[in-house]
Amino acid sequence: MLKVGIVGVGTVGTSVCKILEDNKDIITARAGIEIVPVAGVVNNLSKKRDVSIKLTDNPDDLLNDDSIDVIIELMGGVEEPYAVVKKALEKGKAVVTANKALLAYHRYELQAIAGDIAFEYEAAVAGGIPIINALRDGLTANHIESIRGIINGTCNYMLDKMINENIPYDIILKEAQELGYAEADPTFDVGGFDAAHKLLILASIAYGIDAKPEDILIEGIENISAEDIEFAKEFNYAIKLLGIAKKKDNKVELRVHSVLIPNDEMIAKVDGVMNGISVIGDKVGETLFYGAGAGGDATASAVIANIIDIARKGKGSPMLGFKKPLEDGLTLASKDDIETKYYLRMQVEDKSGVLAKVATILGNKNISIKTMLQKPCDKDKANLLLSTHTCKEKDIKEALSELESSGVVLSAPAMIRIEE
Amino acid sequence: MLKVGIVGVGTVGTSVCKILEDNKDIITARAGIEIVPVAGVVNNLSKKRDVSIKLTDNPDDLLNDDSIDVIIELMGGVEEPYAVVKKALEKGKAVVTANKALLAYHRYELQAIAGDIAFEYEAAVAGGIPIINALRDGLTANHIESIRGIINGTCNYMLDKMINENIPYDIILKEAQELGYAEADPTFDVGGFDAAHKLLILASIAYGIDAKPEDILIEGIENISAEDIEFAKEFNYAIKLLGIAKKKDNKVELRVHSVLIPNDEMIAKVDGVMNGISVIGDKVGETLFYGAGAGGDATASAVIANIIDIARKGKGSPMLGFKKPLEDGLTLASKDDIETKYYLRMQVEDKSGVLAKVATILGNKNISIKTMLQKPCDKDKANLLLSTHTCKEKDIKEALSELESSGVVLSAPAMIRIEE
Repeated sequence: MLKVGIVGVGTVGTSVCKILEDNKDIITARAGIEIVPVAGVVNNLSKKRDVSIKLTDNPDDLLNDDSIDVIIELMGGVEEPYAVVKKALEKGKAVVTANKALLAYHRYELQAIAGDIAFEYEAAVAGGIPIINALRDGLTANHIESIRGIINGTCNYMLDKMINENIPYDIILKEAQELGYAEADPTFDVGGFDAAHKLLILASIAYGIDAKPEDILIEGIENISAEDIEFAKEFNYAIKLLGIAKKKDNKVELRVHSVLIPNDEMIAKVDGVMNGISVIGDKVGETLFYGAGAGGDATASAVIANIIDIARKGKGSPMLGFKKPLEDGLTLASKDDIETKYYLRMQVEDKSGVLAKVATILGNKNISIKTMLQKPCDKDKANLLLSTHTCKEKDIKEALSELESSGVVLSAPAMIRIEE
Repeated sequence: MLKVGIVGVGTVGTSVCKILEDNKDIITARAGIEIVPVAGVVNNLSKKRDVSIKLTDNPDDLLNDDSIDVIIELMGGVEEPYAVVKKALEKGKAVVTANKALLAYHRYELQAIAGDIAFEYEAAVAGGIPIINALRDGLTANHIESIRGIINGTCNYMLDKMINENIPYDIILKEAQELGYAEADPTFDVGGFDAAHKLLILASIAYGIDAKPEDILIEGIENISAEDIEFAKEFNYAIKLLGIAKKKDNKVELRVHSVLIPNDEMIAKVDGVMNGISVIGDKVGETLFYGAGAGGDATASAVIANIIDIARKGKGSPMLGFKKPLEDGLTLASKDDIETKYYLRMQVEDKSGVLAKVATILGNKNISIKTMLQKPCDKDKANLLLSTHTCKEKDIKEALSELESSGVVLSAPAMIRIEE
């Protein structure tokens, strides 16, 4: 019998207990032994919960209990769970976590502390999709060329509704909050930070890159306008918030932002609250992994898969996928050096000479225009929508700033990166 | 250093050697030790090959070489590779195979022979997609409700071209043969047998079902007509060849056949020569795995992932996913008891009373009609296209036979199952 203690018995923790009971037959057959949740930690002991395990408000009660083999960390936050997980590992207990923030900040320290103790985290990225498994064990023969993930269901749900049902941002945000997809303070989701945490975990497994959230480009979906959506539809693009990792020689770009992406790409077809991750390997080509990225049962499905793995093998694969560092390892590309295509939207005066001035500013920064579309809006004003060929982030940023101060555009230009 | 011997150095074997060399840096970092191909077996020693390993035409040279740790079986066929793999396992060598036919017939015997020796086969289903990994390790908390796989790229390529470019079956088959997607004798692919082998492997991992190809319903794509394609487009269906496993209570339906499937399902969007497998778990909901199902490098990517796993852990998960049998295990549903919806097409005389007669024959078998469409074709004749609500395979088969002998239809009715 494998005894499990759960630190943080909320939605996911309750699902873990329930599934271990509901699916005991198949879980025992697959694991070889029975997996039994025996105790849980909650903040508020007086709140009624739908589990039959012994509850305490002190994690030490579980950490000091030698009969508990595996600690499931579902607390949320960073430093508190770090202390709990560290202590559990030091006591020789296997650990399973669904905590992406913890890993975004402390995955390498935890790997060192874990050593030969199993430390698993399938649920931390894309909920029920076994993407850690795929990347850490399934695609290991490959140099990973890119990862492009729809790894925040809230943003994907909102963008889907904004584009396919023309619902404005504010209204759909409120709906997402009512449905429980978005928090009261939605910044963490709509600002791209949640996706960034997950991207950093994937980038460690794919590239051995140790970066922190503050090291990488993170933008959200707050600035997508009705004009941008119209442009996207006209040119057969979807708009998605992607976590992107791309290898170029010995550098890896890591970034989270919304993109225009051709509708016929498989990942552009991932709609609603679902998650999808496209991984391109140099040998396997493109693979894509799709499923529910959140929700109690889907997340618990991943947590329990990890527990079964521990029951079967003790420690499995190396925590972050590498048994030893890559020689001449990869390093993080500077934000300035990111290279992609861009869509720009700006309001200009509808008079002669304006187009030439815009084109000159872009041309001076080596930005070459691919498509341009001018649409009249108010009297004497026009919306100028254009897309570029591949150019450098630094050049685009400088050009946007020059455009803004040049007097030819009437307000700050909008920019969305194009992914194709 | 882990030494590897390859029995069958064709396209995939050559890719294995090449990738172990090309990607030695990342493979060694992930595996922890160097993986080196040292010897290979070929039928014809005089044929020039693009590998630098020592070649022999006798598998025993590798099997009796104690310095070889892992045997990679890439011979094709069933009984010959069975003998080689059995001997390798008995000698204590780990084995990796890409051979779906071998596994379709002998997976349970091989599991018993392997015991504590690693025996891996990720490449046997859907080439480069780590679906064995996902099903065996990633989704273990779930009772699997269904698996629906596009697991034959040849058929998917042909159907895509037939539907989206209106190319007739015979012409696209010839093109597929020229592109190397289909064999000179294409029966194995277009008849559904290749997909059936793969489905049986997946069904073992998901359900612990030991069935053989001859036990299950296998149909191909040979009978899809232009009229069926027109109907599919009109009602917003894709046509796909699916390997389907579905659990209903304690029975599992296993079947391979073409289906009409709504265009908005994620798996309906898997086009061209690509593979995609949708797995629905009772807790995780739908997950989908997409990628290249064939090709030397994609298949070798899966083979090498298995070798890396062996280098990391020796034996990993139980070969077919179960440490012990499921109590009150599942059994294969009879072909007659399959339940689904059906599309029927028949040519009838365009005169009064015919429709009533068709409806009566169907009604007598408890087959309830959902949509019906009558289209005039030649003079005095009409095509009758109809779809049913869910009914039993046995009833449909009997109704089709009665319709054929009733005199109201002018030739044998066509049938495609509907998957929704």
